[in-house]
Amino acid sequence: MQTAESDFLVGFILFPGFTALDLIGPHEVLARCCKRCLLIAATLEPVLSNHGVRVLPDVSFGNCPQVDVLVVPGGPGQEQAIEDEELIAFIRRQSAKAIWTASVCTGALLLARAGALKGRRATTHWLAMDELARLGAIPLGQRVVWENRTVTAAGVSAGIDMALGLIAALYGPDAGMRIQLAIEYDPQPPFAAGAPDKAPQEIVESLRRTSRFANKQ
Amino acid sequence: MQTAESDFLVGFILFPGFTALDLIGPHEVLARCCKRCLLIAATLEPVLSNHGVRVLPDVSFGNCPQVDVLVVPGGPGQEQAIEDEELIAFIRRQSAKAIWTASVCTGALLLARAGALKGRRATTHWLAMDELARLGAIPLGQRVVWENRTVTAAGVSAGIDMALGLIAALYGPDAGMRIQLAIEYDPQPPFAAGAPDKAPQEIVESLRRTSRFANKQ
Repeated sequence: MQTAESDFLVGFILFPGFTALDLIGPHEVLARCCKRCLLIAATLEPVLSNHGVRVLPDVSFGNCPQVDVLVVPGGPGQEQAIEDEELIAFIRRQSAKAIWTASVCTGALLLARAGALKGRRATTHWLAMDELARLGAIPLGQRVVWENRTVTAAGVSAGIDMALGLIAALYGPDAGMRIQLAIEYDPQPPFAAGAPDKAPQEIVESLRRTSRFANKQ
Repeated sequence: MQTAESDFLVGFILFPGFTALDLIGPHEVLARCCKRCLLIAATLEPVLSNHGVRVLPDVSFGNCPQVDVLVVPGGPGQEQAIEDEELIAFIRRQSAKAIWTASVCTGALLLARAGALKGRRATTHWLAMDELARLGAIPLGQRVVWENRTVTAAGVSAGIDMALGLIAALYGPDAGMRIQLAIEYDPQPPFAAGAPDKAPQEIVESLRRTSRFANKQ
């Protein structure tokens, strides 16, 4: 554990079609302790999220210094990103030296493709578990999975839980609690439908049928 | 309740120093049903969040059509935004005709300043409750407060809970559950520290002392 004065550099990867909450959930949490946060993309052009939010990167892959914490979001654009050799090489290079490599949702598939999850336990969106296994990781049905210097979160919103855990790992539990209270993270979802074993089965099956992973199973 | 085919226009207000998760939490949820979402700001220049995320607006206040749902985030920049007559007039004008006017965190103070919460029950970040009362609303210590055509959420992360409720109000509970499952919103915060009555009191007091509302009490 580092002291509260430690000044970690945190890098967040952007690619077209990323899921905005995969990025902003962890960013909101981590940026409250880590004053140096960089959004990293192929170029400095705005990057479009899958639902149309345009975010400006701070630095390109080519100009990014080594980060201490690397956060990789997911989203439908992951399908193209996994074929992007420059992006995958960037993840491979950075994660080799980062203190923590983290993913949210299908960002785990990008980590796996980069070799960062080979034979390691990890999690991802519940619809992408089989794909994660095919890419060489050992999928666990947990919200957050810690393995060596890698932490992976389940779908989209799980990045908030993961990031609070990262804050605790980097700065101690008091810092985690302080941020949790500052963002008033006392969740009260209106339904008990946030996981496939809790939601009505017809909704689970409907999402499964229309998932981009459906034809891979 | 409208059918799933209803095509609501949702507008999200941006101002310098907004809190990114106040915006992206509701956006992630609402954009999954409402295919027309607009980020609205004074100009089309990038808007900087309080932790350095630069987001591009889609439309300026002057060119924005009437929206069906207006979402107002909070953040430290709220202090300057509340003095911005153009922004406040925009909220006043839009909220008068919107089906729903919504706020997250200290966005409620902007709604109140625009007259949209006069004598109405509302919520905001737990540190801003007294300020909300001073602006003419009736603060309730709830995570989400529904009052007529207005819905207000508590601090930062509460916008996710609120938006799922809005989806249910607009499209029915099945749509809400479907999105909750899609974003895997089955929260498992690492600490029981998300509200001032749950967190360690020294952390509550520390945040209270350093709050931008501290000198107003």
